[in-house]
Amino acid sequence: MKKIKIALLGLGNVGRGVWKIINENGEEIRKRSGYDVEIAKILVRDKNKARGVDIPESLLTTNYEEIIQNDEIKIIVELMGGVNPAKEYMLEAMKQKKHVVTANKMVLATEGDELFEAADRFGVMFYYEASVAGGIPIIQGVNESLAANKIEQLYGIVNGTTNYILSKMELENLDFETALKEAQEKGYAEADPTSDVEGYDAAYKLGILSSLAFGAKVNFDQVYREGITKINSTDINFARELGFVIKLLAIAKDEGNELELRVHPTLIPKTHPLANVHDSFNAIFVKGNAVGELMLYGRGAGDLPTGSAVVGDILSVLRNEGNLENYSAVKNNLWKRDIKPISKINRRYYLRITVTDRPGVLGEITTIFGKHNVSMKSIIQRGREKDNATLVIVTHHTNEGDLMNALEQIKELQALESVDNLLRIESFNS
Amino acid sequence: MKKIKIALLGLGNVGRGVWKIINENGEEIRKRSGYDVEIAKILVRDKNKARGVDIPESLLTTNYEEIIQNDEIKIIVELMGGVNPAKEYMLEAMKQKKHVVTANKMVLATEGDELFEAADRFGVMFYYEASVAGGIPIIQGVNESLAANKIEQLYGIVNGTTNYILSKMELENLDFETALKEAQEKGYAEADPTSDVEGYDAAYKLGILSSLAFGAKVNFDQVYREGITKINSTDINFARELGFVIKLLAIAKDEGNELELRVHPTLIPKTHPLANVHDSFNAIFVKGNAVGELMLYGRGAGDLPTGSAVVGDILSVLRNEGNLENYSAVKNNLWKRDIKPISKINRRYYLRITVTDRPGVLGEITTIFGKHNVSMKSIIQRGREKDNATLVIVTHHTNEGDLMNALEQIKELQALESVDNLLRIESFNS
Repeated sequence: MKKIKIALLGLGNVGRGVWKIINENGEEIRKRSGYDVEIAKILVRDKNKARGVDIPESLLTTNYEEIIQNDEIKIIVELMGGVNPAKEYMLEAMKQKKHVVTANKMVLATEGDELFEAADRFGVMFYYEASVAGGIPIIQGVNESLAANKIEQLYGIVNGTTNYILSKMELENLDFETALKEAQEKGYAEADPTSDVEGYDAAYKLGILSSLAFGAKVNFDQVYREGITKINSTDINFARELGFVIKLLAIAKDEGNELELRVHPTLIPKTHPLANVHDSFNAIFVKGNAVGELMLYGRGAGDLPTGSAVVGDILSVLRNEGNLENYSAVKNNLWKRDIKPISKINRRYYLRITVTDRPGVLGEITTIFGKHNVSMKSIIQRGREKDNATLVIVTHHTNEGDLMNALEQIKELQALESVDNLLRIESFNS
Repeated sequence: MKKIKIALLGLGNVGRGVWKIINENGEEIRKRSGYDVEIAKILVRDKNKARGVDIPESLLTTNYEEIIQNDEIKIIVELMGGVNPAKEYMLEAMKQKKHVVTANKMVLATEGDELFEAADRFGVMFYYEASVAGGIPIIQGVNESLAANKIEQLYGIVNGTTNYILSKMELENLDFETALKEAQEKGYAEADPTSDVEGYDAAYKLGILSSLAFGAKVNFDQVYREGITKINSTDINFARELGFVIKLLAIAKDEGNELELRVHPTLIPKTHPLANVHDSFNAIFVKGNAVGELMLYGRGAGDLPTGSAVVGDILSVLRNEGNLENYSAVKNNLWKRDIKPISKINRRYYLRITVTDRPGVLGEITTIFGKHNVSMKSIIQRGREKDNATLVIVTHHTNEGDLMNALEQIKELQALESVDNLLRIESFNS
C-alpha cells in the first residue's frame, strides 16, 4: 500500500467533513485508489478551540512553516476561505512543489489566474471541484466528461441559501424576510446574508464555471449581477399564474464572439427540470453541441457533500501523479471572448407596474412600447387599491436596451404610480 | 501538436456521431487535449452502404486484420454492439497493446470480467462511459468523482424507450400499445421491442453500474427483472390518485453483506426528482455516504449524446497515456457481495385486484393479510362492473415473501375474480 501525507489549511465545517470522510471511508479510499491517505498536519488559528471531532492535538499547528517545510507532505488542501492569506499560502505551497486542492470560490473567481499560472510554472496539480456546487461533480464534468463538446449554454442554481428562500416563498407563501430568517435559523444563511442574497456568491461560481466551459478568462466583475431582495410574494404569485417559477439563475451563453454572463432572479417555465430544484439543493443545466441537455443535481454545501468533492480531488491528484504532462488543468486562455453588455441581450421580460386606473393608460403604454419595438405577449390587470391598478406585462423577445428606453418614457407618464419589478424570463430555447 | 490515430469498429448511429464530433469539434478537442485525433480506419460490413455522412471510402475496410496489424492505430473504438465478434475484436486489440473504448452494454454486462482482466493483463486502458445512459457522465462520476464515498443506493431511469412510453401514458393518457407504436415511429423503440420493454436493457446497465458502485462482480443474470408490458392506464391513474408516478427503475442498494439489484416498474412519489424525468431522457439518482443525494440527468441515447461520451473516453485515454499505473480502471473485485433474493426484500406495495362485490370480502382479505404480517396503509374501492369491484391496496413496509404467501391465499378466495397488478413502491427513505 502506497502512503501519501497531506495537510489541511483550516478546520471549519468542510475541514471536519474531510477529516470524517478520510477516516470513515478509509477502506474504500485505500482499495479504490491504492493509497493510504494520511492527514499529517492541520493549520488552525487556535489550537484550543472545541471542534466536536476527535482529532489528536499533535496534528494541529498555528505555524504554516511547519507544513510548508515538511517534505513528506505532498498535497495542501486549502479550506480557509477568503482571499488572504489563502492565496499566499497556496502560492507558497506550489513553489514548494506541493499539489494544491481548494474549495475556495472567492480566491478562484478574483485571483484565479495567478494561481493557475503558478501551478503551471511550478509543475504541480491544482484541483478545485468543491469551489462550485459542493458535492456535484460539475468541474470534472465540464473539464473532462464534456471535453469533446462546444458548451453553448449553462444555467446554474448554484447558491443554496437563495434557493432555500425562494422555495419557501414559492411553496409555503412566506415573504422574503420570514424566509431569510428561517434560512438563518437553519444555518443556511449567514448573519450578514449579503453575499448570498445579492448574488455575489453565485457570480463567483459563474466566473469559475464559464472560464472552464468556454476556455476563456472570465473575471468575477464581468458578470452582471442582481440579487433576490426585490422579489416578493406578489411576483411569485403572478409568475405562478403565468406558468413560471422564480429562481436565482447563474447564466452563461456562448453567442459566438461574445459571452453572456449574468446572475439574476429569472422566471423559468415550471415544467423545466431546474424549476423542480427545491430547498438548498443546487443544480447545473448545461447544453453542449454533442451531449445536448445535461443536468447535475445535488447538495451544494455542507461538510460531507463538500468534503466528498475535496477528497475526490485528492484522489484525482493521486491518479495523475507522475502524469503531469497530460493532467487536465483548467485551460482558460484558449479563446479570447468579449462579454456582451446587459443592454444588448435579447430576452422576454416580466414587468409589474402600478398605474392610476383611468381610461387610456394602457393605450399610452402600448404606444410607447410600440415606438421602442417592444411587443407585448400578455397583460394581466389586477388588484385595484383606491384608484390604482396593477399591470403585469409579459413581452415577446426584446432587446433590453429598447425596453429600458421604453420604461424611461413610461416613468414620465402622469398615470404611472410606480415601477414595481422588472424580471427576465428564460425559456431555454435560445 | 501531438497526433493520435484511432479506428472505429462499426459505423452505425453512434459511429457517425463520433465521426461528426471529431470533425466538427476538432478545434475544441485539439486545444483542450493537445492532441489531433485522426480516425484512420473504420471497420464496416459493407463498404458500399449509403450512410448519410461524407466519409472518404479509403478509410473503410471490411478486414479487421488491416486495423489490428496497423501499429500506428493506438485506440480501438468498438461500436458494433452485441457480444460476438465485438468481444473477440476487443480482446485481440488489447493483446496488440491497443487501448479500447466501447459503448457496448451487452458485452460488458455479460462478458465484462474477461475484458477487464485482459485490459489489466496486457496493460491497456479500457473505457466504457457510453455503455450506460448515453451522454450522462455516470461512469466517471461514480468511478472518480464519488470515489471517496460508500455508495449506498442507486436508482436509474436508464432506458429511454420505456421512459418515453410511460411518459406518454402518464401525460397524454395513451394506452401501452399506442405509446409503444409512437415510440417505434419516432425511432425510440425497435421493431422487436423486447429488450427495452421487458427490462433487459436496463438490467445490463444496472449490472455495469453496480459493479462499479459497489466494487463487486455483478453479473447481468443476478439482476431481478420485470418489464413494463403489464402497466396500463388504470394503474397509471390509480398511482396518480395516490400521489405517485410509475417509472421503470433500475435499483441497486447496499444492504451490508447483501446487495439488492432489481429492475421493475415502480411507484415513486410525484415530488421526487426522478418523477419529473420525462420522454426519452435518462437520469441516475445516487446516494453516497458523503455526497448525499446526487442526480445526473440527460440524453441516454442518440448519435451525438452517445458520441459525446465515446469521444470523452478517447480524451481520457489520451490524458492517462503514460500513467497506466494509476489509471482508474474499473475495480470490480474489491469486495465479495451476495445478492438478496427478491422474496427477502422489504418494501411497500401497490396491489390491484378484482373481487365479487358482496359483503365480507374485504374482511376475508384483511384477515389473510393479517395472518401474513402484511399491514395495509390505504384501500380504494372503485369501478364496479356488473357485480365486480376493483380494490387497490397500498401496504406498509412488508416482506415480499410474506406478501406473496398472502396473495396465494387470496387467490383461493371464491370472491376473487382476478389479481390485476402488483407493483413495488419506492419512497427513497431506506
